[in-house]
Amino acid sequence: MRLYFATGNKNKLLEFQNFLGPEGIDIEHLDISYPEIRSDDIAKIAASGAKYVCFKAKKTVIVEDSGLFINSLNSFPGTYTKWVHQKIGHDGLFRLLEGKDRKAEFRTCIGICKPGDEPLTFSGAVKGTITREEKGINGWGHDSIFIPVGHDRTWAENQDIKATESHRINAIKKLLDWLKENK
Amino acid sequence: MRLYFATGNKNKLLEFQNFLGPEGIDIEHLDISYPEIRSDDIAKIAASGAKYVCFKAKKTVIVEDSGLFINSLNSFPGTYTKWVHQKIGHDGLFRLLEGKDRKAEFRTCIGICKPGDEPLTFSGAVKGTITREEKGINGWGHDSIFIPVGHDRTWAENQDIKATESHRINAIKKLLDWLKENK
Repeated sequence: MRLYFATGNKNKLLEFQNFLGPEGIDIEHLDISYPEIRSDDIAKIAASGAKYVCFKAKKTVIVEDSGLFINSLNSFPGTYTKWVHQKIGHDGLFRLLEGKDRKAEFRTCIGICKPGDEPLTFSGAVKGTITREEKGINGWGHDSIFIPVGHDRTWAENQDIKATESHRINAIKKLLDWLKENK
Repeated sequence: MRLYFATGNKNKLLEFQNFLGPEGIDIEHLDISYPEIRSDDIAKIAASGAKYVCFKAKKTVIVEDSGLFINSLNSFPGTYTKWVHQKIGHDGLFRLLEGKDRKAEFRTCIGICKPGDEPLTFSGAVKGTITREEKGINGWGHDSIFIPVGHDRTWAENQDIKATESHRINAIKKLLDWLKENK
């Protein structure tokens, strides 16, 4: 089986390929950008994106939207995580969290759409805490400042955990189950 | 002359009415919400919004988009100013600016669209600095933390200045000039 993944993020592409390849599902990169709607709901963003890309590509496509939702910051940076990171970086999050609770959640939603069908979505989430400084040199994005619940190292210090238990992997597993039942 | 203003912000509606009413231009509120595109360019957001609302209302409509662009924060919060304010408030901006340059710019863009035409845009900007604490009790939004260049009080302390020299007033003046020439 082959799915076409519209993303501008090579790290996400690799995470999908590494998990789904051994399951016999080829993930091919699709170089189509799409407008992301403004919403605090990643499922709406993923569904809208999948529908748009499917209409353009005339193929079964997937898109993915993720965000870091920090409890004490009213779910900031949420669905604008990438944009906020480009503007204020990890240093900005550390400043905002000084003296505040550091609990957070990573959320992902995968949208899949077949030509002629409405999009479906598969969500995943992982709870954890934001560190007080960057820890670890592997990974990307916020891997170096996020420690998932049940662990004491960041994803950047322990990429094996991220490869098996992340928000994205949780969503990919749901997608995989659905694909097996709906070949 | 009558223009229909699609906005969810009563303060903006009043600023338009107060300035344009004496010029013989009635600004009537239009209760149509519209999708705001994701862009760092307020002119694109305003043009897109005006086109959408005009298509829905079948009338000559205006919309307006504004943002606070802080130099040392890579133009954060920019076109997401309202959303960021809801999440982290003035306290969040003060934390992010601790020890940094506080120069900033307010930008507005008004989009106007007549049925059958492409939208036009009129922009305005005012430079200033962000205070270290809220000052003044009048106004709304970021009025209490912004001191425009050439003054020593915030807009919340001196609403007369905001009523005659703001980013929004600068854009409204351009719109007015255009309306006079294109009745």
